Amino acid sequence: MLVVMQEDAPEAQVQAVIDRLVGMGFTVHRSTGVQHTVLGGVGPVDDFDPANFEVMAGVKECHRIVSPYKLASRHFKPAGTVVKIGGVEIGGNKVVTMAGPCSVETEEQIECAAQIVSNAGAQVIRGGAFKPRSSPYSFQGLGEDGLKIMRQAADRHGLLVVSEVMDRTQVPLLVDYADILQVGARNMQNFNLLRELGGIRKPVLLKRGISATIEEVLLSAEYILSGGNYEVILCERGIRTFETQTRNTFDVSAFPVLKRLTHLPVIGDPSHGTGKRDYVVPMARAAVAAGADGLIIEVHHDPDHAVSDGAQTLRPEQFTEMMRQVRAIAGAIGRTA
Amino acid sequence: MLVVMQEDAPEAQVQAVIDRLVGMGFTVHRSTGVQHTVLGGVGPVDDFDPANFEVMAGVKECHRIVSPYKLASRHFKPAGTVVKIGGVEIGGNKVVTMAGPCSVETEEQIECAAQIVSNAGAQVIRGGAFKPRSSPYSFQGLGEDGLKIMRQAADRHGLLVVSEVMDRTQVPLLVDYADILQVGARNMQNFNLLRELGGIRKPVLLKRGISATIEEVLLSAEYILSGGNYEVILCERGIRTFETQTRNTFDVSAFPVLKRLTHLPVIGDPSHGTGKRDYVVPMARAAVAAGADGLIIEVHHDPDHAVSDGAQTLRPEQFTEMMRQVRAIAGAIGRTA
Amino acid sequence: MLVVMQEDAPEAQVQAVIDRLVGMGFTVHRSTGVQHTVLGGVGPVDDFDPANFEVMAGVKECHRIVSPYKLASRHFKPAGTVVKIGGVEIGGNKVVTMAGPCSVETEEQIECAAQIVSNAGAQVIRGGAFKPRSSPYSFQGLGEDGLKIMRQAADRHGLLVVSEVMDRTQVPLLVDYADILQVGARNMQNFNLLRELGGIRKPVLLKRGISATIEEVLLSAEYILSGGNYEVILCERGIRTFETQTRNTFDVSAFPVLKRLTHLPVIGDPSHGTGKRDYVVPMARAAVAAGADGLIIEVHHDPDHAVSDGAQTLRPEQFTEMMRQVRAIAGAIGRTA
Amino acid sequence: MLVVMQEDAPEAQVQAVIDRLVGMGFTVHRSTGVQHTVLGGVGPVDDFDPANFEVMAGVKECHRIVSPYKLASRHFKPAGTVVKIGGVEIGGNKVVTMAGPCSVETEEQIECAAQIVSNAGAQVIRGGAFKPRSSPYSFQGLGEDGLKIMRQAADRHGLLVVSEVMDRTQVPLLVDYADILQVGARNMQNFNLLRELGGIRKPVLLKRGISATIEEVLLSAEYILSGGNYEVILCERGIRTFETQTRNTFDVSAFPVLKRLTHLPVIGDPSHGTGKRDYVVPMARAAVAAGADGLIIEVHHDPDHAVSDGAQTLRPEQFTEMMRQVRAIAGAIGRTA
Repeated sequence: MLVVMQEDAPEAQVQAVIDRLVGMGFTVHRSTGVQHTVLGGVGPVDDFDPANFEVMAGVKECHRIVSPYKLASRHFKPAGTVVKIGGVEIGGNKVVTMAGPCSVETEEQIECAAQIVSNAGAQVIRGGAFKPRSSPYSFQGLGEDGLKIMRQAADRHGLLVVSEVMDRTQVPLLVDYADILQVGARNMQNFNLLRELGGIRKPVLLKRGISATIEEVLLSAEYILSGGNYEVILCERGIRTFETQTRNTFDVSAFPVLKRLTHLPVIGDPSHGTGKRDYVVPMARAAVAAGADGLIIEVHHDPDHAVSDGAQTLRPEQFTEMMRQVRAIAGAIGRTA
Repeated sequence: MLVVMQEDAPEAQVQAVIDRLVGMGFTVHRSTGVQHTVLGGVGPVDDFDPANFEVMAGVKECHRIVSPYKLASRHFKPAGTVVKIGGVEIGGNKVVTMAGPCSVETEEQIECAAQIVSNAGAQVIRGGAFKPRSSPYSFQGLGEDGLKIMRQAADRHGLLVVSEVMDRTQVPLLVDYADILQVGARNMQNFNLLRELGGIRKPVLLKRGISATIEEVLLSAEYILSGGNYEVILCERGIRTFETQTRNTFDVSAFPVLKRLTHLPVIGDPSHGTGKRDYVVPMARAAVAAGADGLIIEVHHDPDHAVSDGAQTLRPEQFTEMMRQVRAIAGAIGRTA
Repeated sequence: MLVVMQEDAPEAQVQAVIDRLVGMGFTVHRSTGVQHTVLGGVGPVDDFDPANFEVMAGVKECHRIVSPYKLASRHFKPAGTVVKIGGVEIGGNKVVTMAGPCSVETEEQIECAAQIVSNAGAQVIRGGAFKPRSSPYSFQGLGEDGLKIMRQAADRHGLLVVSEVMDRTQVPLLVDYADILQVGARNMQNFNLLRELGGIRKPVLLKRGISATIEEVLLSAEYILSGGNYEVILCERGIRTFETQTRNTFDVSAFPVLKRLTHLPVIGDPSHGTGKRDYVVPMARAAVAAGADGLIIEVHHDPDHAVSDGAQTLRPEQFTEMMRQVRAIAGAIGRTA
Repeated sequence: MLVVMQEDAPEAQVQAVIDRLVGMGFTVHRSTGVQHTVLGGVGPVDDFDPANFEVMAGVKECHRIVSPYKLASRHFKPAGTVVKIGGVEIGGNKVVTMAGPCSVETEEQIECAAQIVSNAGAQVIRGGAFKPRSSPYSFQGLGEDGLKIMRQAADRHGLLVVSEVMDRTQVPLLVDYADILQVGARNMQNFNLLRELGGIRKPVLLKRGISATIEEVLLSAEYILSGGNYEVILCERGIRTFETQTRNTFDVSAFPVLKRLTHLPVIGDPSHGTGKRDYVVPMARAAVAAGADGLIIEVHHDPDHAVSDGAQTLRPEQFTEMMRQVRAIAGAIGRTA
């Protein structure tokens, strides 16, 4: 850690900081400049809060040198992680698409969705059986019945299943039915859930919270990785800003930033990222152009009658067209889709 | 609901919107202006998403008329809710203070804290036994042992206990030991937890998420209220903005806004709201001046050695001084503290 | 305008709103629902602030129906505007690239830049002669000498010139030397400058402010258009959010949103949008994939020694490679570049 | 400056950074830790961009040690600045109030305002003669006539005048009529204007931009101070966040933060900070409780008919009551008002 002292900080204040650093196990390098003294703390200490030093008398600012995440960093695995499930590889050259309705409603609806998804060439079907809803008066999902419906339709069409797990008590159920367990944006810092997912051996799709920094996403991934589950897929799905034309601001730069900082695959969710159907296709193109390893898309055979998220859900023909365009973009940057 | 059609939207598009509204159970009032047709949908329908109409052809914009929350609205209980626990009233004339360390560490530490808190005239001791931490490598709390330590110290000093519940599996344990169950900012939209808390009969302290709008806080409160638990206390604790001089931006205007929109008591947490000890006292004053019904404050007998949140934790003498100043501010606006 | 009254608003309050609407020249339609009365004000009135009604007794909320901008709206010119300068068309099928250094430094530097830019197939050279700098101690630009250098180099290489105008006193000078006058992000709401630019007959490149909503960008464009200058090009260049990995958050969804709301051409500036060289190329691809009509890029023959913005400035070979990739992306969506 | 190298950065990369630092005039201290090498650059160099080093190969991050502003820092003048105009002191013990309508409309209106303001015990009348308006179709101000009206009314009632200057061409006019020249939020980074104001000898009221960090406000103040005008008063007036219940989020913590970082007086504008009349009084109380040196408030004898900002403008009786409450709060913290 680096501690920059204020100009003219008296020696007693410098010494107090040194004492505290040494007391925590740091070796201290002192460097005295014309205006500022800088203290560098080097050591085996990982878990400390730089803010504790920032409030000490005479301290101007502090900077953590070592990243607070390790297993998630690109440095830990420079070649990059490819998550392999059956024949599907996420994080490889091919851009993978996961698609389906927001909520599982009926067997017929999911059968329709599975046809649309597999016909268009996507690899994974999505659909929520447990739904986190802002209002207690909204539809809350079919639960285990929904998972069964998803599993059967996926098997009929040779698709994988991704579905959301809302808390740690639901993990065993999801493990039984899904190929990938999704952690929703609102649960990105549900640490009990993350720890539980560190103990399973199925891939986890971790969505960025709407107000989470990229560093916080990586710390949440670290929870899962440090439990021994190395198959984590990250997902950008829009952050909250002042702009209201879109439901969230889809942070497309998160793709190149994350690809640089971490070895984990990163996919994009332009459905939640924009909240409006007409913007999903251009933003799916943008995500792939910026380097996303995959997409997760809401599609429904009749979005006007979907029980949730209809406004951001593609019609079947829009989805098919999106797949065509995404393939063209992938080709333009030397990938397939 | 109001649907504003685009200028020159053809009659077929208007009709499609009317048909959809009627199909959902709305009675439709049509009003045709020089440039725009406006459709007003009136009816018993509560659970719908205006975004579904916004993406229809020819629609310019939609507005929900009826608030999505009901039990939490000021209209439901104009006189305001006072949560009474033993002799303590939250939401009445007296400004209530909850204080204590971020984490429960040892019996001695909590005994110290209880003395500081009760001597200064505060009513509730706080302390975390289960700690949501961004990093998996940070201290995660003492669990049930921590709750026992809190309960015993509180009883010795005539204080109430508030402590955080991290997921629904911990609810029974917290009900056994705490007088008020705290939902942390990261869990404000953990709907399974909220629903569980609707079923208990102990007060809940619901913290605003760092990126939650005020409407979303009220919807989360609605989850608890709609389960039959009417004793909900809201807490402003800072939102995430672009400013980095403070850990969060303590949204002081949330106090008058919430007091207008809801009947529930609202307290402020300037410790998390600012993240730095030196700003806690002025912001505690500001919160009370703006109308907060109470405060929740981090204080520790030796913050430099606190296991968590030391930088934002007051020293004992600062806390005592804060109580003095807060009392003066409360007096200036006709309240006590 | 629509005014939604609160539940149970007494008749006197409804009448007060009606009286005020009528007094302002609106015709009022009243629609009474089970819970809420809604008043629709229709009329020739353009310049009013809905907030004035929101604070009236008994009013729940207000919504402006008619957009506050007119000349900038897509509805005004559905076919879209193509700005033609010499042989260059901005807003047509071809994606146009403007590129060059942040600041004009020397004649040699600009000659180098002009070669790089024209060799790579871009159409416009950029470079600042007047520099808005956060610190008074930073380089402030060469002024008219810089403009001369730019003009001469551009003419030698068959390029157009775009350069920034910082206030209305500089307009005549810029008109003399530049083909496109750029309004920087910090000046997006310098209304005296915008009004002055409405009176000239040269295209204006209007950059979105870092905290400007899309509606505010369009209102600023309206200032220029309403003065009679119809050649306005909009530019997305990043908004301020809580994320710090990038200098700003490049709002890629602004491209499809703006293309829907306005007929004006929209280009992207991934250099300022990201602030870091390594992210410029992927975000240039993303912008074009999302529908941008052009790009404005910082490139320098030796960015390590650029007097300003070096970190976000491409090296010559990176720029050439970017042009190649952008051409591939443009081709994938049926455009050229 | 501090440059932290990445783990395992090869010696050649370290050397390249050292060479660049030395080339810029820095003396370099090198400190090699177990994982990271840290380079400290010390020297007379003030104007450089740390981002230039962050993009060098092998660099993890950079931190500027010396603040980019000097004259504005508390360190430069620890005792604090008191701006004295006639008998009014801004930045002293007494909390100063500036109040009046958003826009100057008529002589009668300003006479009314001056009576309200002086009767309630405020010291300065505010009113805009030049109005920056988002829409070109809105009222743009009376210009010099407005300033004359303000001056005469102020003189009749023993008040000072504060009024906004929109660009550098208006500076001489404002100097003739006003006692304090206001720079509006939209112009906080209009550097030509700031530089011009550095050359006058009248106090400047500098408002924080809605997306300006506190450091950026201080850099803008530095422009004025470095021109030789030391009488700068800062003003917090709300920042843009995701919350929409208030027009802006009034950043009350800016008061204690600024009082710590700078010696300049800091006042608050809860009218623009909240945008709604009913929130102005509680937020005025909060600002003073948090340490503001003064307030600037919109008040009008008939806000329902104000030409601008009516919704956030207090009625006369509200203003008088606000003054009473603010005095009580000031008294509670040992100040007068």
